Amino acid sequence: MNNQKNKKVGKHTVKLSNPPKIIATYSIVGPKEGEGPLRDYFDEILNDDTCGKDSYEKAESDMMHTAIRGVLGRTNLKEEDIDYLFAGDLLNQITSSSFAARQLNIPFFGLYGACSTMSESLSVAAMMMDGGFANYVIASTSSHFSAAERQFRFPLEYGSQRCATCQWTVTGSGAMLLAKEGNFPEVTYVTTGVVKDYGIKDPNNMGAAMAPAAVDTLVRHFKDTGRQPNFYDVIATGDLGKVGKEITNKLMMEYGYDIRENYVDCGDMIFDDVVQNTDAGGSGCGCSAVVASGCFYKKLMRKEIKNVLLISTGALMSTTSSLQGETIPGIAHAVAIEYKDK
Amino acid sequence: MNNQKNKKVGKHTVKLSNPPKIIATYSIVGPKEGEGPLRDYFDEILNDDTCGKDSYEKAESDMMHTAIRGVLGRTNLKEEDIDYLFAGDLLNQITSSSFAARQLNIPFFGLYGACSTMSESLSVAAMMMDGGFANYVIASTSSHFSAAERQFRFPLEYGSQRCATCQWTVTGSGAMLLAKEGNFPEVTYVTTGVVKDYGIKDPNNMGAAMAPAAVDTLVRHFKDTGRQPNFYDVIATGDLGKVGKEITNKLMMEYGYDIRENYVDCGDMIFDDVVQNTDAGGSGCGCSAVVASGCFYKKLMRKEIKNVLLISTGALMSTTSSLQGETIPGIAHAVAIEYKDK
Repeated sequence: MNNQKNKKVGKHTVKLSNPPKIIATYSIVGPKEGEGPLRDYFDEILNDDTCGKDSYEKAESDMMHTAIRGVLGRTNLKEEDIDYLFAGDLLNQITSSSFAARQLNIPFFGLYGACSTMSESLSVAAMMMDGGFANYVIASTSSHFSAAERQFRFPLEYGSQRCATCQWTVTGSGAMLLAKEGNFPEVTYVTTGVVKDYGIKDPNNMGAAMAPAAVDTLVRHFKDTGRQPNFYDVIATGDLGKVGKEITNKLMMEYGYDIRENYVDCGDMIFDDVVQNTDAGGSGCGCSAVVASGCFYKKLMRKEIKNVLLISTGALMSTTSSLQGETIPGIAHAVAIEYKDK
Repeated sequence: MNNQKNKKVGKHTVKLSNPPKIIATYSIVGPKEGEGPLRDYFDEILNDDTCGKDSYEKAESDMMHTAIRGVLGRTNLKEEDIDYLFAGDLLNQITSSSFAARQLNIPFFGLYGACSTMSESLSVAAMMMDGGFANYVIASTSSHFSAAERQFRFPLEYGSQRCATCQWTVTGSGAMLLAKEGNFPEVTYVTTGVVKDYGIKDPNNMGAAMAPAAVDTLVRHFKDTGRQPNFYDVIATGDLGKVGKEITNKLMMEYGYDIRENYVDCGDMIFDDVVQNTDAGGSGCGCSAVVASGCFYKKLMRKEIKNVLLISTGALMSTTSSLQGETIPGIAHAVAIEYKDK
């Protein structure tokens, strides 16, 4: 088992010895996301963000179920062929994921990393594939604006005011299906985040809370792999929004990395904040999920780009922790996705 | 990479090719658990279940941090030596785990499987070890009676009545440290659960909601491995309690497996329900964590038993899902722990 030692490169990064291929993705979004700048990349745009259900929570779970069925439908695989489903979401006790998994006969591992969950689920999924435990796995996350607002902030009916640093939770779900073989984009490196807390207490400024975690993981990734920022065509944080993105650019510069040229943020990309009134940008587990499954994956498949470093970012708070005066810790996990010409 | 194909045995089970060793465990419990039948097995018994903090939620997080520091203290390892921490808990957005991880410089994967989280974290931890991604990992979970009561049921101050099928959330946290080498109990098989829902709606009868998931995973484990129940010295479900245990015994019999001789339930073991007024028994992520880390691990180390099949069981509901009329899905993950004489 000598290959076991080769997988770790540096303290926080592993190099996959048999990089799993992302053979299909599926993205489903709400009406607002469907009016945004990335509209043409999504596989499905809802006309009705309740999905015909009697609650937003049920609608969110339905979206994830649709995304998982959707990604299966892009292949000739059945749910019985899938060895594991790795999924998570923002709702208390990740019920969107559990209730989606209830409708599927797939061994299920629930994950929670707040808005970092897409790259967390993709990390664990890829490592399980590479470890020899699976032939096919699915990684998925979801979020829903209306379900998140009433759980984390106020019922929509209150009409609470928003602020300039506020973000807009993305209504959407993305799913990725990983396999051993095929000419597809593959997961090559996984850099796992540690929890970082720089004392931000404002739950309306998640970007600032999460940016140090993103910077920490980015710097570790570059150090561990020996790569420079210009190696990647796209470096994409999950949902730092405009505020967090600016902080990230500045902090990275302090560490000696100028990432401005190829650095984007999924939350910054998904809405047109001037027209759509989304303030600092999109957020939520679904944000980086649909931007990665929709936009980046399709750009990779079309050979418009050859690689992406996806760093979904999570704010690890609850309403209870904030009300008890706690600061907001952040975490970020990086996954390198590369499409090598063969 | 031919060894990749050998790890799957049957649809839901993997056999670890280099079984990770559980080189240390640590268990910390509250005062009530410290008065129960298993008191002599726990490493630390709190006199004060607030741990000197100003909220039960902070106390729970502190317990997990203590358990993780405790398991490190049982070895000569430092937190820098640990490649990954896999942890989860019952609180919204698993803040007990995230806030414990905040104090540790260890790459962190948050998990959520309700009360199944201990065997979920141990499953993923063992597979990551066996996959060659880590030299040392820690798996941990926690729960706290008073934090769980006010989140899932009522504030304690209401003095709500309990019913015969009610369970008592365990105040406690357990941690296990896995390594590649050493003469210790090892993780040999992992059987991952699917979500099962048989329509139970009563959030005061979790045992009935979770029992079908436990039975499903047990039957799959026996079929996949070819083992019979009598192979194990102990078959332990997580927290089905008295009601769920009885259902499990009956359902297993219907599937042709008589497990009564060596079948126990951690929730049934941890309290003396007559003296301690715990009704159907203990529950919570911490329940199977402290019983496995405390009782079973020490029995293995003392050679009183040679193997355990641990099946932590989770009810995948939230207060929101129950109030919206949803049924309660369950999940169960099985991990075989064996101490082979060498």
